[in-house]
Order: sequence, then structure tokens, then C-alpha cells
Amino acid sequence: MDQKVSDSGERQKSIEALRELIRDIHIAMLTTRSEDGGLRSRPMITAQHEFEGQLWFFTHADDPKVSEIVKQSAVNLAYADPERDRYISITGQAELVRDKQKIELLWTEELKQWFPQGCADPSLTLICVNVSEAEYWDANRNQLRGIFRELFFETEPELKHDRLKWAETA
Amino acid sequence: MDQKVSDSGERQKSIEALRELIRDIHIAMLTTRSEDGGLRSRPMITAQHEFEGQLWFFTHADDPKVSEIVKQSAVNLAYADPERDRYISITGQAELVRDKQKIELLWTEELKQWFPQGCADPSLTLICVNVSEAEYWDANRNQLRGIFRELFFETEPELKHDRLKWAETA
Repeated sequence: MDQKVSDSGERQKSIEALRELIRDIHIAMLTTRSEDGGLRSRPMITAQHEFEGQLWFFTHADDPKVSEIVKQSAVNLAYADPERDRYISITGQAELVRDKQKIELLWTEELKQWFPQGCADPSLTLICVNVSEAEYWDANRNQLRGIFRELFFETEPELKHDRLKWAETA
Repeated sequence: MDQKVSDSGERQKSIEALRELIRDIHIAMLTTRSEDGGLRSRPMITAQHEFEGQLWFFTHADDPKVSEIVKQSAVNLAYADPERDRYISITGQAELVRDKQKIELLWTEELKQWFPQGCADPSLTLICVNVSEAEYWDANRNQLRGIFRELFFETEPELKHDRLKWAETA
């Protein structure tokens, strides 16, 4: 089920499907490419907002991942829910946003644990991931014989996991 | 706690620490770089064996991730255990191994769900990830005020998550 999404209706369907898939998984592993060419990931809390094709994360301006994103914007977000056998891979391009209004809009008090200075902290930076592709493996949705059966059968279309595609936004 | 590991005793300690961290997390998200430059991940079952610096996974020779690894061997493995607030990032180089003896050694009957032809399947291929660096975030081990406090404080050494390093093996 490889869906090329060319109209906004289809795009909206993909957005809603992904929104539902990641709704209860708050932490994503964000993978970036470091200067030495290695791939590194770290857990990140997804900022609470209605998903419309972009995912948002808080960080500090001087964080190593910020400079990694500046050099190489291609990132992966992996959402894992082992309890429910659900795994989601999101391919996207990250950009850094330091817009004060957006920071205030996405800020929640829960974030104070990691950013004790609150949303007025001048080093606060948002990482915005523009989703270009998403894939998921869900034992419950796909009613497979074994969990993750499709995992190792990516070359067999009929067993392939679902892939959601976004049209390029102009 | 950035440990440069130059002798085999220190290396062994890092290996044991990582072995313990991932013991109960069977599924890793393996991130590779695809031909178009995007980063993709997919859930993979870690083959059961005593971890000694390499992690092993079964796949099929014609799987897209195999050709991705051929072109670019830098990979990331993310192990997530949201229940216990534990997240591990492993940076490594992947290589493809089609050694029949190794396949038989690592084969377990559980794998039949995904490889119904069993370990005699001629397309069976092993992905061996040689670990060069590992980082973890563990709310219980680090006794942080808030869970994952260190997550966003990578630039503050005293709050930094633990990083395990392997000496280069000749």
C-alpha cells in the first residue's frame, strides 16, 4: 500500500493516520548525522500540538544536535511502543525555529523539568521536522499471522507495511 | 562521563554495561541512509547471542536495507523502553554476513515467523553492526530529579547522559 499522495484530500488522510499512530507515544528517537558521519539518536519529547505534517521539539541553541541539523537536515524519527507492538519510522527534513510566538504557543509546563528557565529562556530553540515519508509496523492494525511479519518482507508488496507519503508542499 | 576506552578491561566494562541495558529490549529501530539521502528506520529483532561489541540481525538479501548498507555502512540502532524510561542510541558500522555457520549459530525457531523457510533459506543474510559508540538515557540509573533531565543538557558535562565508547578493534 504505497500511496502517492498528490491531492490535499489524500494528504489529509495520511496526516490523520499518522496523527493517530503517534498519539500515545510521546518520546521519539531523533536520528541525525554527526560530523564524523556516524548516525546518532536521542529521545525527544514531541511537543503537544495538532499534527499537520510537521513535528516539533524543544532544545537548546547550543545543543550538538542543533549544529548537526544545520549541517545535514535529513533526520529520522522513530516512535516505538513495544507494549502494543507498534513502530513508526518518519523521514523528514529538520529546520530550526527560534520564533518567540511559536515557542510560547507550544510551551507546556511539563517542559520545565528540562528547561527550568521556562519559555523565556533565550536559548530555547524549536526543531521542526517536515515529514516527507512515514512507515509503520503495527501488529494490531495489519492483522498479520505473526507480529511484524511484514518487517522482513519489504520486497513483497502484499505483505509490505503501510507507507504514508506526503505530497511536496510548495 | 565520557569514557575513552583504550584498554581491553575498560572495553569489557562498556560491553557489559550495554549488554545489560539492552537485555530486555528485543526490538531495535535500525536507521540507514537511503539512496535519496533520507534517513529511514525499521524495527529489527536483535539476534540472541552474548553481546561482545557486535549486534546481529536477520534479513533477506534482496531487502532494500541491504543495498542501503552496501552504499552507506553508517547506521544507528535505537532501543526504546518507554515503560522503564530507558532509551539507548548505538552508533555503528553495519556489514553484511552470509556465513552459513554463523546463520545456524544465531538461528532460533522464533525467527520462523518471518523466515518461514528456516535457516536453510538461501537468501538469509545477517546484518552485523559493529558498535563504535553507545549512549543511554535511563531515568532509574541516573537518579535524576526529573526523568530524562539530561536529555536536553548535553552541553553540561555534569548532567550529561552516560556515553560508552569502544576502542577501535584492529
